Amino acid sequence: MKAVWLENGQVSLRDVPVPDVPPGEALVRVALAGICSTDHGLIRGMYPFTGIPGHEFVGRVEIGPPELTGRRVVGVISASCHACPTCRAGRTSHCPHRNVLGIEQRNGVFAEYTTLPVRNLYSVPESVPGEVAVFVEPLAAALEVAEQVHIRPTDRVLLVGAGKLGQLLARVLWLGGCDLTVVTRSEHTIRRLPSGIHTLTAEAVPAAAFDIVVECTGNAGGFAIARRAVRPAGTLVLKSTHERQTPFDLTMAVVDELTVIGSRCGPFSPAIRMLEDGRVDPSGLIDHTISLEDALEALEVSQQPGVCKVLVRCAP
Amino acid sequence: MKAVWLENGQVSLRDVPVPDVPPGEALVRVALAGICSTDHGLIRGMYPFTGIPGHEFVGRVEIGPPELTGRRVVGVISASCHACPTCRAGRTSHCPHRNVLGIEQRNGVFAEYTTLPVRNLYSVPESVPGEVAVFVEPLAAALEVAEQVHIRPTDRVLLVGAGKLGQLLARVLWLGGCDLTVVTRSEHTIRRLPSGIHTLTAEAVPAAAFDIVVECTGNAGGFAIARRAVRPAGTLVLKSTHERQTPFDLTMAVVDELTVIGSRCGPFSPAIRMLEDGRVDPSGLIDHTISLEDALEALEVSQQPGVCKVLVRCAP
Repeated sequence: MKAVWLENGQVSLRDVPVPDVPPGEALVRVALAGICSTDHGLIRGMYPFTGIPGHEFVGRVEIGPPELTGRRVVGVISASCHACPTCRAGRTSHCPHRNVLGIEQRNGVFAEYTTLPVRNLYSVPESVPGEVAVFVEPLAAALEVAEQVHIRPTDRVLLVGAGKLGQLLARVLWLGGCDLTVVTRSEHTIRRLPSGIHTLTAEAVPAAAFDIVVECTGNAGGFAIARRAVRPAGTLVLKSTHERQTPFDLTMAVVDELTVIGSRCGPFSPAIRMLEDGRVDPSGLIDHTISLEDALEALEVSQQPGVCKVLVRCAP
Repeated sequence: MKAVWLENGQVSLRDVPVPDVPPGEALVRVALAGICSTDHGLIRGMYPFTGIPGHEFVGRVEIGPPELTGRRVVGVISASCHACPTCRAGRTSHCPHRNVLGIEQRNGVFAEYTTLPVRNLYSVPESVPGEVAVFVEPLAAALEVAEQVHIRPTDRVLLVGAGKLGQLLARVLWLGGCDLTVVTRSEHTIRRLPSGIHTLTAEAVPAAAFDIVVECTGNAGGFAIARRAVRPAGTLVLKSTHERQTPFDLTMAVVDELTVIGSRCGPFSPAIRMLEDGRVDPSGLIDHTISLEDALEALEVSQQPGVCKVLVRCAP
């Protein structure tokens, strides 16, 4: 099968064998895959990874249990042991023995086929277009913020960074009724946001003015804006990993009694519900859909200024 | 009056005028003052401060409203405006216009007299000895952790650092029934802890094994132990300010979905209750009580290894 291959920071298009299906797993024909900032981080060497990258997908089960075979599915990216104390405590995404689709010790979805444990798969109604279903994984990650933090309708909330994930986060935060401001100066970003969301340039963000600030840039500049904007005894959510060491002043965190919360993967069921009934409409976020043969170009294009989501069409 | 004076990192004993009493404030004859690690931080230049240091005290009101005059009191150290949005939202200890007793823009308690706003003062029953009442302020700071974090009886909790404040924190955490471990190798520290608390040396602390970790050292080594010990999706409480920049990996905070909570001053009423009825007994923590004339010696002594609390007797 055709697949994108990452090795020593180089991506190439290769012919590789269709994967064997381990016990408890299913073989999925990938239909569409989404390009995420984490994919670019991997290529730049943020984590050591050799293999097929990509972790956002919708596909169809070709080999699996009867109730799933032939079904359209999306998948939780962490494959966990379900036996260790962490898994038994319900924190399976933190399993110390996990591998992660297209990120850590497991081939991903920029390919014609992928495998995942059956228990990781969620079927998606046929009524949901593939171009919508492919957003389940990143929307789940956005919803994780609402899982972790009580966001009140009366809260003043600031979102720093409205890229691929940030646009979904803006929608999730906005639906809850809070007074939402997004930091951006990009017309490309602003036109994609739901109406009713304020925008500010970085320089115009007031200090200590927001109850909850969500940092979604993963860089030191974005973090500095976020840290400055959160009020004393407020909550700062870290929604993006940082490729470089970003300075954080622990003393001022104590003085200001800040709550800082790291946030990663999230719940699939509400993400599917919200995409199915249109509560979240990601269609305005897709700029290009490019076939797997041209996946290297797709990776390039997705980094161009003003480009939001690029999808890779893996099945004809 | 006699007072300790801090200026350009030098402490001296001086004769200074008894303070004037501003409107809304009371004049307090200081009976006993406690030496806190923050006092040593100030002397080392952690914050710029010129004036009389010291913020833990019990004393008696000499000039104030009739209902308080002659009463034994303790006092909240942040003097806030009670008019700004932060104060009106109930977060008076975070008032951006505040000054802080013996720490920031307000003379403290290593002196015969001090002043504080009347609304900052809490009267303490005469039945509570001064040597107990002087612990209200630091015990309130320890209780702030329980105000901020839900500590379940079933939680595995690690306390890193059992100095002056840490010993009080150990008692607060222990009373809630959790499975508490304190990191220490000092016999001086261990003998002061309530029975039923486990102790471990730093090297023996297991990784990712504690639901809640409270960092109470304020140094990079203690923070590293704390960070390593907290489980994924666990809570790390920062209870001490850090004099130097301590590295903190934001990416791993995201990956582990850590909650980090800064914690500073706390509620006085429960602290007074718990000291009054003996739920917390701080008597084993006092190593020396030294008169104000010898306050510079008291500051020296309180930094000696194995010494916990040193009190300064300000009234004869």
